Amino acid sequence: MNLYNILSALNFKIEKKLDNALGRAGILSTPHGDILTPAFVAVGTKATVKGLTPENLKALPLQVVLGNTYHLYLQPGDELVKQAGGIGKFMGWNGPTMTDSGGFQVFSLGVAYGKQISKVTKITDPSLIIPERSSVEDGLAPLVKIGADGVSFRSHLDGSLHYFTPEKSIEIQHNLGADMIFAFDECTSPTENTRYQEDALTRTHNWAKRCLDRHKELEAEKLQPHPNPLLKGEGRTPQALFGIVQGGRDENLRKKSAEYIGSLDFDGFGIGGSFAKEDMETAVKWVNEILPEEKPRHLLGIGEPEDLFMGVENGVDLFDCVAPTRNARSGASLYTKNGRMNLMNSEYRNDFSPIEIDCECYACKNFTRAYISHLFHAKEMLGGELASIHNLYFISNLVAKMREHIIDGTFFEFKENFLKEYNK
Amino acid sequence: MNLYNILSALNFKIEKKLDNALGRAGILSTPHGDILTPAFVAVGTKATVKGLTPENLKALPLQVVLGNTYHLYLQPGDELVKQAGGIGKFMGWNGPTMTDSGGFQVFSLGVAYGKQISKVTKITDPSLIIPERSSVEDGLAPLVKIGADGVSFRSHLDGSLHYFTPEKSIEIQHNLGADMIFAFDECTSPTENTRYQEDALTRTHNWAKRCLDRHKELEAEKLQPHPNPLLKGEGRTPQALFGIVQGGRDENLRKKSAEYIGSLDFDGFGIGGSFAKEDMETAVKWVNEILPEEKPRHLLGIGEPEDLFMGVENGVDLFDCVAPTRNARSGASLYTKNGRMNLMNSEYRNDFSPIEIDCECYACKNFTRAYISHLFHAKEMLGGELASIHNLYFISNLVAKMREHIIDGTFFEFKENFLKEYNK
Repeated sequence: MNLYNILSALNFKIEKKLDNALGRAGILSTPHGDILTPAFVAVGTKATVKGLTPENLKALPLQVVLGNTYHLYLQPGDELVKQAGGIGKFMGWNGPTMTDSGGFQVFSLGVAYGKQISKVTKITDPSLIIPERSSVEDGLAPLVKIGADGVSFRSHLDGSLHYFTPEKSIEIQHNLGADMIFAFDECTSPTENTRYQEDALTRTHNWAKRCLDRHKELEAEKLQPHPNPLLKGEGRTPQALFGIVQGGRDENLRKKSAEYIGSLDFDGFGIGGSFAKEDMETAVKWVNEILPEEKPRHLLGIGEPEDLFMGVENGVDLFDCVAPTRNARSGASLYTKNGRMNLMNSEYRNDFSPIEIDCECYACKNFTRAYISHLFHAKEMLGGELASIHNLYFISNLVAKMREHIIDGTFFEFKENFLKEYNK
Repeated sequence: MNLYNILSALNFKIEKKLDNALGRAGILSTPHGDILTPAFVAVGTKATVKGLTPENLKALPLQVVLGNTYHLYLQPGDELVKQAGGIGKFMGWNGPTMTDSGGFQVFSLGVAYGKQISKVTKITDPSLIIPERSSVEDGLAPLVKIGADGVSFRSHLDGSLHYFTPEKSIEIQHNLGADMIFAFDECTSPTENTRYQEDALTRTHNWAKRCLDRHKELEAEKLQPHPNPLLKGEGRTPQALFGIVQGGRDENLRKKSAEYIGSLDFDGFGIGGSFAKEDMETAVKWVNEILPEEKPRHLLGIGEPEDLFMGVENGVDLFDCVAPTRNARSGASLYTKNGRMNLMNSEYRNDFSPIEIDCECYACKNFTRAYISHLFHAKEMLGGELASIHNLYFISNLVAKMREHIIDGTFFEFKENFLKEYNK
């Protein structure tokens, strides 16, 4: 049986739309199951959501795991993951999977290297704006060099030299075998000037087309008879390719990018970039007003409660972000409906209530603040595990509730009530 | 309801004995459930078996968890654990619990500090034998000073000064609230001379009596009407006290200790000491031939397969050891029926079989050597978690099988077959 004949890469059905806004609830069907959207995607950088077993994840309202192409290419290598049967099988997760393209790592190891620039940046210091940009020569020795054809970079693990082209990123992602993969793009900083943003966008658009072409070739190969008849179903599951819209904070560039990327035959779309906090909403709105409505949209690397509401309201279907798990492992930033909580504060040392009283997660139903606080103070691994379970539950459950409220027609009341409590 | 009226601290029933040997299979009943003996006890030093949830433990043939009094006293403090409802409730483990007395930490931070001496020591270098011993003055700045009345020590966490007497150890262990607790003892090194062993044994014996007296007082208090009638059942669960036999490698001292400790009204017995590998079997045999047969015996800090067979054969009912989890977290020492395996070896990087093919543990049923090896190489927490699950399964299941084979009358065949494969 050739799986390609019975499975389509992706099927997206919109169930309900918001009135007077772009938001919608849908069902995204993948070869590894349906995803009720909007949905939060857990980040499993190196084919593991740090510290958690797949069973821990299955107990959450979590439906998808995203691995990082850059990291998995370096370690353990995409060929090995292919041999293992793809990222899902390798890590024991039988639900839907995604991989990113490596583009963000290029950015974060390149121009953003050593600077305080990440997915969401507050540009309060005007001197951060780079007037004439030269990514390689500005002193901080970035590990990355960007050319028209691709990107050369040094491994952060051993300094070895590597070269990614758009085609290479797609080939790696076909080896990794996730259900949904992304076109290779250049993520720019909001501090870049317009000329650089234009140049980068031209590269991203050229690369998008090249990714799509290479992806179509590789998908077509899956339709051919398998060279080894014993393995005819192996590694032939169709994959869906998402194009990525870039364009920084510039309205013209964002719209131009949405027009162009939206016109190509992608299965879905990512909205990329490193955003100044105040620019994110306008950028998402510009883009989603243009992108074809019938295809799913993923806002890359965004996952704070306020931003999730903003994204859902403005037509985003999928989100991924390391923040919930990274914050959890520090112990210093646990989500509650009354805002973030620093469990390292001494007041929690003898507090025998759960992290959040009516939370249904495993950590809250079985352990106290006092115990988890003790685990953090004693540097015990279990602290980060339990806090990660709580934060992932909180965020994925929040997005699942947004979906319910879209369907019930009560999204805006839910948003208002939640944010009032959360920001109190 | 006063729990003391309906629960007895401990009940031990021998089901089957070995022919011509001291070994036996039994049932040890505690206020938190029955333990089928012989049994392996997981070490949860700071009220957590490192990296594992209570659910992970419940999925293993594991029946008891042991916390360390020294560590819990320092962090989070025994008063806090008492407020939480005792160690079991604090850590979310509802099965039987134990705490040790702090005696071994006194040893390991004292005379053994900075030396290659642990629970099982190979004394191949005769210069290791200490001719005239002076624990405090021999240059390595131990953190501990032992006197007749008790032990003063500095916290390894913050250098603060503390003082343990036998009474203090018992009071702490009553706060920690485990089902089975241990008398405060002095663990000596096998490298000590006879004079020192004699002095230490005198201290251990005096301390044993003082522990028992203080324990009886505290147990008697549980029978009194509770000062707060609303809390009348709280903190009143009876606890069982185990005396510890010491005496180093000296036959006379070991027998003398077994006679004396065995004559006191303890609920069970620990066999303590830091053993030269070749001395362990004789020491255990000397002791168990003397200890009252009808009470349970715990060999402290021992957990390698060969040593478990030796102990079970010679009448030991309980074992605890950090080795299975410590070895697991390094990735370098995973137990299999064909001996230990170093998962860090490059040959396992693309080995898609489980750690052990017919192992029934969660790690082996869901993950490959290649994946777990990747987790270790990538320094991902989940590697240590999965390896810990496997090693704890292996060791606790091994002891559970010894029990089955005692009952079936096939213990010696099982031992022979297992060790032949294991040491091949």
